[in-house]
Amino acid sequence: MSQSTSPVIELTKTLISRKSVTPIDAQCQVLMAEMLAKSGFANESMVFEDTTNLWSRRGSESPVFCFAGHTDVVPAGNLDSWNTPPFEPTIKDGMLYGRGAADMKGSLAAMLVATEKFVAEHPDHKGSIAYLITSDEEGPFINGTTRVIDTLEARHEKIDYCIVGEPSSTHEIGDIIKNGRRGSISGELTIRGKQGHVAYPQHVINPIHKAMPALAELSSTHWDHGNDYFPETSFQLSNIESGTGATNVVPGHLTALFNLRFSTELTFEKIVDKVNEILTKHDLDYDIKWTFNGKPFITEPGIFINAVSTAIENVTARKTELSTSGGTSDGRFIAPTGAEVIEVGPCNATIHQVNESVKCADLEALVDIYYQTLVHVLT
Amino acid sequence: MSQSTSPVIELTKTLISRKSVTPIDAQCQVLMAEMLAKSGFANESMVFEDTTNLWSRRGSESPVFCFAGHTDVVPAGNLDSWNTPPFEPTIKDGMLYGRGAADMKGSLAAMLVATEKFVAEHPDHKGSIAYLITSDEEGPFINGTTRVIDTLEARHEKIDYCIVGEPSSTHEIGDIIKNGRRGSISGELTIRGKQGHVAYPQHVINPIHKAMPALAELSSTHWDHGNDYFPETSFQLSNIESGTGATNVVPGHLTALFNLRFSTELTFEKIVDKVNEILTKHDLDYDIKWTFNGKPFITEPGIFINAVSTAIENVTARKTELSTSGGTSDGRFIAPTGAEVIEVGPCNATIHQVNESVKCADLEALVDIYYQTLVHVLT
Repeated sequence: MSQSTSPVIELTKTLISRKSVTPIDAQCQVLMAEMLAKSGFANESMVFEDTTNLWSRRGSESPVFCFAGHTDVVPAGNLDSWNTPPFEPTIKDGMLYGRGAADMKGSLAAMLVATEKFVAEHPDHKGSIAYLITSDEEGPFINGTTRVIDTLEARHEKIDYCIVGEPSSTHEIGDIIKNGRRGSISGELTIRGKQGHVAYPQHVINPIHKAMPALAELSSTHWDHGNDYFPETSFQLSNIESGTGATNVVPGHLTALFNLRFSTELTFEKIVDKVNEILTKHDLDYDIKWTFNGKPFITEPGIFINAVSTAIENVTARKTELSTSGGTSDGRFIAPTGAEVIEVGPCNATIHQVNESVKCADLEALVDIYYQTLVHVLT
Repeated sequence: MSQSTSPVIELTKTLISRKSVTPIDAQCQVLMAEMLAKSGFANESMVFEDTTNLWSRRGSESPVFCFAGHTDVVPAGNLDSWNTPPFEPTIKDGMLYGRGAADMKGSLAAMLVATEKFVAEHPDHKGSIAYLITSDEEGPFINGTTRVIDTLEARHEKIDYCIVGEPSSTHEIGDIIKNGRRGSISGELTIRGKQGHVAYPQHVINPIHKAMPALAELSSTHWDHGNDYFPETSFQLSNIESGTGATNVVPGHLTALFNLRFSTELTFEKIVDKVNEILTKHDLDYDIKWTFNGKPFITEPGIFINAVSTAIENVTARKTELSTSGGTSDGRFIAPTGAEVIEVGPCNATIHQVNESVKCADLEALVDIYYQTLVHVLT
């Protein structure tokens, strides 16, 4: 059977051709639910506001092995920069091109094909298999995974093991899996001064001048040294703005947005305290609007990581590496329930870019990795 | 004669009612030229682009005593905040209200009334009397005084003594005159970094982080200690901007606008060198677009200052104070020709604000001050 007609490639192509720009699902989940129903899954569509979610489960026993992911994709961006139309999946030189090919419609297809095969061969597997799929992972993540988790927790339904299909690989399929993610906290800082004419410095309090030494200290602070699983915590100012536009007016206030990606050595509380300590020391009239994006989480080496690593080594002859680097994923909403969460997916080199693509052979390998992990954990 | 019917009040009211929002002259200069012609002045209207200027001179001898000023006014702003319509001059409790009452149509009227009286009584005065009037002092000052000065210099016509009618007084008429102005230089600074995702600090160069220590040093630097005539040089950041708007993206560059008001201890060149020295020390990838707004100038005590001070003391029984503080004025374009320049005008408490006003009695006093100065210098 040639790659272009294999089930995982055909299914990925079908999903790519459904233009599901966040938070639109474009009937991707209906297609998934139909396939899962044929394998004996019970589907629940959970629509919250503009977001479509799917919770699907086969079996009622523990442990619950869950595939998590999203049908939404980021916008295509500049169409002229694409070599092929982003929503017309195209195979060239063994690569499948299209928006969502790597993030993460290829993974969804691989999960489904692996599950179909596993259920056919092991209809009486132990525990349960579940799917937690959302259409707002790329959006504001308010009405997606977090609300499905709330619903499950309310009825005491618990996930034990979770594979998130995010594109975790860097150079070769399976070279890296993510067994945790840093926490993320953002602040919108306003520093107040006193507006006036630049020619009368004695009558103004320049908020830019007041801010500089404090922001310099915040950006040069070492927050921790990281630990076995996490690099050191990073502070970044992403936006700063002050001024009336006029060159002869000292402005009345300055605003700055900052973000910390932090290790399990820190907590929201410790960070808030430390930032306030530094700003107070610099004698500033300020306030901060905090956004708590996600706590850090870690899945420590054990049965589950071992199952995934062994599957990767069997399929690719490659020893996988554990990592907690990179951005956030919906794993942050699942891990706090006590689930062991690992992200395993294709290479992420082209995600969110024009000409997003995935190697066809990698999707075939991913089917095998997911399948063998199911075998390890549920038989 | 009551104040409300005196020549200087009537003339100020007529000028206020001509809505000359910068750079519109609204026929103010035509009115002035007609009055000056009756006193034997030769008028030259110099129109450059959107700006109307008047050069008027009586006599061909030296020294040339010049009244300088502007017919344009700043916009009225929020009309609802005015107690009376800004372009309908209104007298209440001895105050004349209207846009331009203090800055500087009252001064123009006082100059004209003083000149008319002086010429009538001293038709054979020594030297010459001149008027240099523009309609863009409140605007970008490109086509106003500076171009008239260029024209005069090209034909070797020189001003020896110049009174600029800017509102120099603070609490009482004549309490302060400006015998110089600080220089002004502005810079638009761009600091370049390398854009990227906040989650990958190792792949970005954060221009905000790079900028903070350098800007902190610039804003805490002591540039000089001033001197007998000038306060110490002041550096102010007026605008700062960086960021894509997204909280998860480290931006590629930062821009900041700054301005220095500087004493005669410094020069454009010294400031540019020092700023570059500080930025280079902080290892920044940057460039600066400089705007050279004006060199500092000073009129040292001598015959002219003495004439003005004596006139003020005669009229108000007040000892005037010399000052170089405050914003810029068109004096900066006249002083470099070698002219002695002094700013003498009414109180500036309400200028550029709603309910701009001038005390009627102050305008009467100003007529006398201008008149006596003419007598001191030209008889």
